[in-house]
Amino acid sequence: MRTPRTKPTITAILALLWVALTCCVALAQHPDSLPSWNDGPTKSAIVQFVQDVTKEGGPKYVRPEARIATFDQDGTLWCEQPVGQLEFVTWRIKQMASNHPEWKDQEPYKAVLEGDKGFLVNDLTHNHGKALMELVVATSAGMPIEDFNRSVTEFLDSARQPKYNRKYTQTIYQPMLELLRYLRTNGFKTYICSGGGVAFMRVFSEDTYGVVPENVIGSFAMNTFKQVDGRWQIVKDKQNLFINDGLTKPVGIDQKIGRVPIFVGGNVRTGGDIGQLTYSHTNPLPNFQLLINHDDDVREFAYSEKDNASLNAAKAGGWQVVSMKRDWKRIFPF
Amino acid sequence: MRTPRTKPTITAILALLWVALTCCVALAQHPDSLPSWNDGPTKSAIVQFVQDVTKEGGPKYVRPEARIATFDQDGTLWCEQPVGQLEFVTWRIKQMASNHPEWKDQEPYKAVLEGDKGFLVNDLTHNHGKALMELVVATSAGMPIEDFNRSVTEFLDSARQPKYNRKYTQTIYQPMLELLRYLRTNGFKTYICSGGGVAFMRVFSEDTYGVVPENVIGSFAMNTFKQVDGRWQIVKDKQNLFINDGLTKPVGIDQKIGRVPIFVGGNVRTGGDIGQLTYSHTNPLPNFQLLINHDDDVREFAYSEKDNASLNAAKAGGWQVVSMKRDWKRIFPF
Repeated sequence: MRTPRTKPTITAILALLWVALTCCVALAQHPDSLPSWNDGPTKSAIVQFVQDVTKEGGPKYVRPEARIATFDQDGTLWCEQPVGQLEFVTWRIKQMASNHPEWKDQEPYKAVLEGDKGFLVNDLTHNHGKALMELVVATSAGMPIEDFNRSVTEFLDSARQPKYNRKYTQTIYQPMLELLRYLRTNGFKTYICSGGGVAFMRVFSEDTYGVVPENVIGSFAMNTFKQVDGRWQIVKDKQNLFINDGLTKPVGIDQKIGRVPIFVGGNVRTGGDIGQLTYSHTNPLPNFQLLINHDDDVREFAYSEKDNASLNAAKAGGWQVVSMKRDWKRIFPF
Repeated sequence: MRTPRTKPTITAILALLWVALTCCVALAQHPDSLPSWNDGPTKSAIVQFVQDVTKEGGPKYVRPEARIATFDQDGTLWCEQPVGQLEFVTWRIKQMASNHPEWKDQEPYKAVLEGDKGFLVNDLTHNHGKALMELVVATSAGMPIEDFNRSVTEFLDSARQPKYNRKYTQTIYQPMLELLRYLRTNGFKTYICSGGGVAFMRVFSEDTYGVVPENVIGSFAMNTFKQVDGRWQIVKDKQNLFINDGLTKPVGIDQKIGRVPIFVGGNVRTGGDIGQLTYSHTNPLPNFQLLINHDDDVREFAYSEKDNASLNAAKAGGWQVVSMKRDWKRIFPF
C-alpha cells in the first residue's frame, strides 16, 4: 500500500497548511470579544443577538447595510459625573467673561461664573439642556469650525475628571469600548446619538471610540460657509438649533441615517434615551436594547432617575438592563 | 545536475500558483473602470487623481477614512429636464387638490395645477427652490415617513421622463454610475449632496446609485417621533427647514459628515454647486472638482447658466469641466 514518493510530500504540505489554517481560525474565534463583561444573562444576550443577526441563512439574519447601532454618550460611553460638555462650556464662559461684563448679572452666565453647578445639572435633567445649548451657541457662534475644534482639544488636554484625576477622554467605559469594537467586527456601523453637541463630540469620537465624525449624531445648529480673512470657511452659527434628546433622538437618527437602528444603548438618568430605545424596538428586523443602570457607587457613581421611567420602559419593553456593579468586570481602561 | 524527484513537483505547483495569482491580479486591474468615458484629459485627470490618493507611501496618499466624495444629483447623476422632484410634487398636488379647493387661487399651488412649468423652474433657478420646498412640506408634513416613502415609490414606478419615455430612475448618467463605483472600489465613501429633499432621494439612492440612505445629503425639515394609530412612528414635519443649495451645500456637508470632501461633482445650470466645489478646494488634502457642462443637445439637452458663474469659477479654480458631448461615450444605461 505504499504510494509513490512525491504524493505523501504534497499531501503532508497540504495537511500542514490545513492544520495551520484551522489553528488560525480557531485562534481568531476563541478570544473573548467582551473580556470586561462578566459572564451572565446580559453578556449572553448580547453575544446571542450578534450571532443571530450575522448568521447567513439563519432566521434572524440581518444584511450588513442594516446593522446600525446607536449609543448615547454621557453615562453610556463615558462617565457623566460631571458632564464633559458642561465643563467645557463653563471653561469657555470663564475664558470669555472679561469681554462680557454683562454676564455677571445675567442667567445662565451668572450661575456658571458663580460656580453654581446645580443650575446646569438641573437644566440638563429637567429641561433637555436648553440653557446649556444656549451657552454652547453663545460661546461658539461666529467661530470658524477649526478654531472651535482647537478650543475643544485644548480643553480636553487640560481638564481633569475630579474623582479619577484623568482626562475626560480617559474616563470612558472599557466594556462599552469592547462592545463597539465587537459590533464593528461583526459588520455593524456604530453611531453616537447623544444630547451633546455634534461638533464637540466629533473632535474626539474617532480617537476615543473609533466612531468616525460622520457617525456622530447630536444637538446642532446649522453653520455658515463664508470668507473669513480671505479664506472660505465653515463658521459656527446658531440657525435651526436642534436639541437631540428624548423623543427627538429618533428624529436626529432619522435625519442622519434614514434607517431604524437594530441595536441601541442608553442609560438611566434623565429618561433621555427612552426615545431611541423605543425607536429601535419599532424596527421589523431583529433588534436589541441595552440600558445601563448606574448602580456602582464604589467604582463609579450610583444614581437613579426621579420617576424611574427608563427602568419601567425597559421592563415593559423587555430591554436588557446592565448593572454596572454586576455585569462589568472593570469600568475604565486605566 | 538532476534534483530529487519531489522538488520539481512542488516547485511546479508553486510556479503554477504564482502564474494563476498573477493572471488574476492582471485581469482584475486591466478592465477599464470608466468604459463610458472617452479617452482624453478629463478621464485621465480622474484616473490620475484616484491613483495618486490611493498610492500608499506616495506624496498624495489620502487615508481611506478621508476619501469623501460628494455629488449633486439633478443634472449631475440624473437628467434634470424635467427635475424629478418637481414632477413628484406636481403629481402629489394634483392628487391632493380635491381636498384643497383653496389651492385653485393660491400660489404656488395655482401655477402647479394650471400646468405652469415655468413658475417652479424659475423658482428653482433663481430662488433656490424655496417655493418647491414649500410645496414639498405642504404635500408631506403630517405623513408617517413610511407612507411618504410609498408615495415616492408609486410616483417613480408610474411616471415617465417625456423625451425618453423611461422611468426617472433610468435616465441616469452611465458615466457617473461608473465613476461612483470606481471611487467606492478605491475606498471612497460616495455621498449625494443635492438641493432635493433627503427623504425623496433616499427612497431610490441605494438601488439606483449604490448610495446608502445615510449618505444622502439634501434639503430637510426635522420630523417628529410620535404615536400614530397606537404605533410609534417618524412623521414628516416642517420644523427647522433647511435648503441645501449654493453656499449652504458646504453647511449641509459639514452637518452630515464633519469632514471636507476631497472629490466633488456638480453641474452647470444655477450655480448651485459652486459652494461645494469651492469647499472641497479648501481641503488641505489633495482634492478634485468635476463640473458637468450640458452641451449635448442631440443625446441629452444643451443648456447654460445665465451669468456663466460655474464655468468662470471652474476656470479660476482649475476644476475639470466635463463636456458631455466630448467626454461621454454614452449618456444613459439604456
